[in-house]
Amino acid sequence: MTYRKESFEGLIERMEDYLHSKQYVQARDTIIELEPVDIAFIMETLPEETIPIVFRLLPKEQAAEVFVELESDSQEKLIQGFSKSELKEVVDELYLDDVVDIIEEMPANVVKRILATADAETRRDINSILQYPESSTGSIMTTEYIDLKLTMTVEDAIKKIRRVGQDMETINVMYIVDAARHLLGYVSIRTLLLSEEDDTMADIMDDGIISASTLDDQEITARKFEKYDFLTMPVVDKENRLVGIVTIDDALDVLVEETTEDIERMAAISPSYKPYLNTGIIETVKSRIPWLLLLMVSATFTGQIISSFEDALAAVTVLTAYIPMLMDTGGNCGSQASVTVIRGISLDEITMKDLPKVIWKEIRVAVVVGMILAACNFAKLMFVDRLLFHNPITVTIALVICLTLIFTVFAAKLVGCTLPILAKGLGFDPAVMASPFITTIVDAISLLIYFQFAKFLLQL
Amino acid sequence: MTYRKESFEGLIERMEDYLHSKQYVQARDTIIELEPVDIAFIMETLPEETIPIVFRLLPKEQAAEVFVELESDSQEKLIQGFSKSELKEVVDELYLDDVVDIIEEMPANVVKRILATADAETRRDINSILQYPESSTGSIMTTEYIDLKLTMTVEDAIKKIRRVGQDMETINVMYIVDAARHLLGYVSIRTLLLSEEDDTMADIMDDGIISASTLDDQEITARKFEKYDFLTMPVVDKENRLVGIVTIDDALDVLVEETTEDIERMAAISPSYKPYLNTGIIETVKSRIPWLLLLMVSATFTGQIISSFEDALAAVTVLTAYIPMLMDTGGNCGSQASVTVIRGISLDEITMKDLPKVIWKEIRVAVVVGMILAACNFAKLMFVDRLLFHNPITVTIALVICLTLIFTVFAAKLVGCTLPILAKGLGFDPAVMASPFITTIVDAISLLIYFQFAKFLLQL
Repeated sequence: MTYRKESFEGLIERMEDYLHSKQYVQARDTIIELEPVDIAFIMETLPEETIPIVFRLLPKEQAAEVFVELESDSQEKLIQGFSKSELKEVVDELYLDDVVDIIEEMPANVVKRILATADAETRRDINSILQYPESSTGSIMTTEYIDLKLTMTVEDAIKKIRRVGQDMETINVMYIVDAARHLLGYVSIRTLLLSEEDDTMADIMDDGIISASTLDDQEITARKFEKYDFLTMPVVDKENRLVGIVTIDDALDVLVEETTEDIERMAAISPSYKPYLNTGIIETVKSRIPWLLLLMVSATFTGQIISSFEDALAAVTVLTAYIPMLMDTGGNCGSQASVTVIRGISLDEITMKDLPKVIWKEIRVAVVVGMILAACNFAKLMFVDRLLFHNPITVTIALVICLTLIFTVFAAKLVGCTLPILAKGLGFDPAVMASPFITTIVDAISLLIYFQFAKFLLQL
Repeated sequence: MTYRKESFEGLIERMEDYLHSKQYVQARDTIIELEPVDIAFIMETLPEETIPIVFRLLPKEQAAEVFVELESDSQEKLIQGFSKSELKEVVDELYLDDVVDIIEEMPANVVKRILATADAETRRDINSILQYPESSTGSIMTTEYIDLKLTMTVEDAIKKIRRVGQDMETINVMYIVDAARHLLGYVSIRTLLLSEEDDTMADIMDDGIISASTLDDQEITARKFEKYDFLTMPVVDKENRLVGIVTIDDALDVLVEETTEDIERMAAISPSYKPYLNTGIIETVKSRIPWLLLLMVSATFTGQIISSFEDALAAVTVLTAYIPMLMDTGGNCGSQASVTVIRGISLDEITMKDLPKVIWKEIRVAVVVGMILAACNFAKLMFVDRLLFHNPITVTIALVICLTLIFTVFAAKLVGCTLPILAKGLGFDPAVMASPFITTIVDAISLLIYFQFAKFLLQL
């Protein structure tokens, strides 16, 4: 089959029938040609008790690939039910970085079982990766790469790849190291195949290497894949000794995860790292409530500002009706600036030293935007609100509202573009300085401006 | 050199000196070992008139790689200054999909020059890619892949790779086609190297192919790279004939671009596809003003609601002070729900059929969140606002505010989680249904709830 439907509904129904009537051969043939991630999806859609049955129908290597794609709950249940030899088979087939990912999600007793079945060398490698801090490059690397010596010929290299290639995460790039494992250069499989058999690695390798350090933040390493179009990247320790590689599939996962984290922070949610539908109610509440509480309490200032201008509002009651419009427009202008800048920082397009340029740009944008909004709003106030809705709007009141708009837009853009960069400079996550936070600050500013103009122009 | 600093300041200064004193050999040696993207960055930081000079210092192949990484303004100026043979050299060295990307940014006269220098076959390929709609998979594919026949042996295949591999975008995966170019299967370079020399492609190929269609949306294709951990993906026409491949570096660019687009839409900005600092003031204003105007005018409803309850507000003036807090908290709750759901839709974790599950989850979250916020707020109203700030808060007023909070949170979460999924179902971009839009709707709802409770409980 060369085509595959995105929807597996028919397939899942057939699987249920086959499993129910114990037609295991047919069940296996139904899914065996699918990609591991799709088989995992189907297994988890089927009744829970059939997961181990389907798993045991799969050939050893494929079973391991499917295992990686299962949710950690299912993985745990499978491991609990495995015999010792079954567990060893799966662990042996898996790539090392996948074993580490799985171990990080498992309870202690399961981890113990996994480590007990691994051979001494694997166990040492697992433990060494596990010791790197969460979110570090070391924690996402694998130690299953091919290293070559400077004096090896192309023929030697291809022989080595044929010998050990099966167990390696990738054979697209090989790394050249000296006796003390210092990283000297790299050679791609393409260069190898296009070179003469007796060329040595010293002749053909590229020594312009960009490497990551084990303690580098995983997001910084992942962004380098995007910038340099790498498929793999070497990871070195402080003495420039090769200790592992990161492959693009793991870098891509990091990018997606970090972007989700940014987006959640921008919406005042603490990142959860779990698919939405798999997150429990309490967990979701926990990730949302702290910010809501903080922002709710911050709104006290806005309330106090309104209270202190109660008399002005009582004298010209129509002023109250425009508070939401002013606050929302200010909030929206601030979010536009802050979100654009936060994304620019994420993509490494904006750094601390660009602050003056960013401010100068936002000032000019703010002037143009403020003017346009004020002009449109003035027309709307005079022709729609006054003539159509008969609101008691005078030219002076319209002027108060429109002047406030201009100054609010200005303040909002300025606060919106400055705070994320300052947060970054102080070592905080700029994403926190997005819409909700900016809105709360801009609310207070816009009300203060509003009431000052009202007091001055309306002589309150 | 195996290490490289992120900052190029010292390097750029040296380059300026060398270029100024016409020490071109030293200038070349200063940058020649850097990655193309870094050389491009340095060239664009240097004075504009030196770009062609530095470009001509680079070896042919590297020059082409650097050319791809330059901004389109610099590319255009370089092409305008190229002799015919220089242009031909660059076009010949470039990968086809890069040529197409460049052509898409150039004015008509430059496009004509590029097409005139390409040979007939390249020109045909360029034109065929150019005809695919923007954002389609066809528009990001390349036609430079290696295809193999079913009857070829491993030896034949490796010979072919050695012969044509230099000009191909990748040799990590080769595709097997029949005489009519129907896609039959694929074989990775690893499989080739680990097989016997006389195995045929029919013996070793994998026929479980996941392919994209030329007209598929580029984001859907890019997400498949993430899901299946692919390095390349074949692109077929309606008759399942192989017409090109997409490589992961282009898929990654699409993912980053589409995510930026989502984030911008969520902040009520029309996507611009340009780095922030390279976008002009007018362009930035144009991408921001339509949404601001729309949302500003929508706030008319909120204003009208307040106007119609003017008497109630005049009777109990303290009610006005809590409008911002209620509106902001509602807005924040709504954004949290909508942004989470929008991201879930982007990552394919949430589809139309999950709507009931999503609503049921948000209802339960809303109840818990609403209760907690209301309880905290009640305490704050009675102990801080009344005792500390001496605001005229009675238990009934506090009750009005807290009941409004509970119902607002409920409505906000419901609207926030429903609208993005409905938008998706109707074929709109769910990202538009983020914070600003939700806030405007929730503002009106929260005010209506507030005044109903006020009228009822305070007998206004």
